[in-house]
Amino acid sequence: MPEIPKPILIQKDELREFVGTLYQKTGVPQDHANLMADLQVETDLRGVFSHGTRAVPGYIEKLLDGKINPTPRFEIVKEAPSTAVIDGDNALGHVPSAKAMEMAIEKAKSMGIGAVGVCNAGHFGAAACYGMMAVREKMIGFATTSTAMRSVVAPGGATPVVGNVALCYAYPSRTEQPVVLDMACGISAWNRIETMRMYNIHIPMDWMLDINGKPTNDPSKGEMLKPAAGPKGYGLAMAMTALAGPLIGGMMGCHKDAGPSEHFFIAFNVSSFTDYDDFIREMDRSVRTVKTSKTVDGVDRVYLPGEIEWENYEPWSDYGIPLHKDHLSALAETAEKLGVDVFWDVGGITAAGTR
Amino acid sequence: MPEIPKPILIQKDELREFVGTLYQKTGVPQDHANLMADLQVETDLRGVFSHGTRAVPGYIEKLLDGKINPTPRFEIVKEAPSTAVIDGDNALGHVPSAKAMEMAIEKAKSMGIGAVGVCNAGHFGAAACYGMMAVREKMIGFATTSTAMRSVVAPGGATPVVGNVALCYAYPSRTEQPVVLDMACGISAWNRIETMRMYNIHIPMDWMLDINGKPTNDPSKGEMLKPAAGPKGYGLAMAMTALAGPLIGGMMGCHKDAGPSEHFFIAFNVSSFTDYDDFIREMDRSVRTVKTSKTVDGVDRVYLPGEIEWENYEPWSDYGIPLHKDHLSALAETAEKLGVDVFWDVGGITAAGTR
Repeated sequence: MPEIPKPILIQKDELREFVGTLYQKTGVPQDHANLMADLQVETDLRGVFSHGTRAVPGYIEKLLDGKINPTPRFEIVKEAPSTAVIDGDNALGHVPSAKAMEMAIEKAKSMGIGAVGVCNAGHFGAAACYGMMAVREKMIGFATTSTAMRSVVAPGGATPVVGNVALCYAYPSRTEQPVVLDMACGISAWNRIETMRMYNIHIPMDWMLDINGKPTNDPSKGEMLKPAAGPKGYGLAMAMTALAGPLIGGMMGCHKDAGPSEHFFIAFNVSSFTDYDDFIREMDRSVRTVKTSKTVDGVDRVYLPGEIEWENYEPWSDYGIPLHKDHLSALAETAEKLGVDVFWDVGGITAAGTR
Repeated sequence: MPEIPKPILIQKDELREFVGTLYQKTGVPQDHANLMADLQVETDLRGVFSHGTRAVPGYIEKLLDGKINPTPRFEIVKEAPSTAVIDGDNALGHVPSAKAMEMAIEKAKSMGIGAVGVCNAGHFGAAACYGMMAVREKMIGFATTSTAMRSVVAPGGATPVVGNVALCYAYPSRTEQPVVLDMACGISAWNRIETMRMYNIHIPMDWMLDINGKPTNDPSKGEMLKPAAGPKGYGLAMAMTALAGPLIGGMMGCHKDAGPSEHFFIAFNVSSFTDYDDFIREMDRSVRTVKTSKTVDGVDRVYLPGEIEWENYEPWSDYGIPLHKDHLSALAETAEKLGVDVFWDVGGITAAGTR
């Protein structure tokens, strides 16, 4: 395994302003640009760089190529007291998704639950962002998304029939950090496969199939992913895609090779179901019970869903986010194209790489 | 592996009447008894005997021991336009659960979505039963349940912190069978472990831990299950338990060693979100695409979630349900206790076993 270069510490506020400026330079209105910057930097702070600012250059390229609409007009195509469907007008997925979760929260305040879908939009980043929006309103948040491309096989299948679909459940807390499950239904994130390709690391034989449907341990030959836990990950991916898909005017994963994504959000208003303080007390108590529970030999402690991500959040907010130099180089390259100056000088990283 | 005895074919209508009579003999009112019989025989017809009539003797024992209330009075303890919580008054779990899904469906008709929880009730059988109730009303059904007892460890944990929690998503269709995902979050169903214990079959080393938290391949020494796909199954179990738990006045799995279960249901009214015919067309088309998709060498075809269960349904409805003689013996033993005659004579199975 090659030496991993020392990351460079980047301050969240400067990064947020920089990212917002990049989006504005492509014609994205200021409020949408700021929202993108907020959500992508928040995702960096949780250590999920692939869905945070590392995705900025890719989104900007699509904006510049006219594949994403920088100035969308959202339309509510269907609405009932507790539900709605928003047409995303081919926007950056985050923008109508945040709007959808806001609507779900508003509906849940009076109705108990709200469910809002977004069709015809781009990738929405990290599902956890939307779950956390509900948590901040003392609600349980659920988010799921289809993908533009099928990449995961059924058990026994040799062609992809579902996407590597993500889902999030986020639960409010008080003295402890919120429990935030944010998972994909495939056996691995594609991003992890990419990293293993970069470093030439073998994958387990039961993770992927090559182009001929044969098992392979070479990540660069892997074309399709297996589902997590066989029929369970496959079934969940299919269930999620039916919500973030045909239910809101989209297609099932087996028919998707390109095109827009769909997203689906639910907010559960805790106090419509039970006493909020009782709920919080039991959630906080459970976090403590699990954290301090007995472990197997060689394991220090048990983690809650999302806890490893929370452990980054506060120190990185205070001292800076440790970004890889290639991550910064890619951002610098995008900035150069748009005539925006980079704000960092640690190691002198520019579009051309480390000086 | 020992020889598997030939199953005995039992007609669904006779079985339904017999099971209903057993419940009535314990003091369960006729409508509740018939509902139990309907749901448990329906579950047999899908081949999930462990959650079908094989569970009858256990439930009846609890009724006779006073551990389940045969004549519950359900109370709505909290309600909003799209949500409700029902106190199950320590009933057989199926009865308030069916009521809860009916309420969720009614709410979804006018609101778009309905979510109803049941606290303070017994085991609810197969989650798929409730998902299918929504499907029959042209809705998507979701059901989940806590369990009375924690039995699944966190990754790296050596003490159970969640139950082997089940969840179901069921989707309507027209020309094809509905897609019905009904899964547990642990690496195996407990029932499968039981079967492997009976036949002395080794389990894989990464399925279970013994009482000391050490891996074991001996199912009779296995005390705790690992979650399916590590952090994913563990995280999902925790997410489901927070809905079917603290959200409706119950506890998280890590605090449960006995006592009642909680159940949680959602109905999504498809036509509130999109054109129902468009939805059905895409679901049916997907089922055909997946069924006929390319397979790996040695695999005949790919199955949809729930499809293997559907394949039993029609032939067994027509020709009888193939029940194991031990299954029938246990039912006969219960019938004898209650003074009810058995209706079958195939092989002469009575409470004392095969004559």
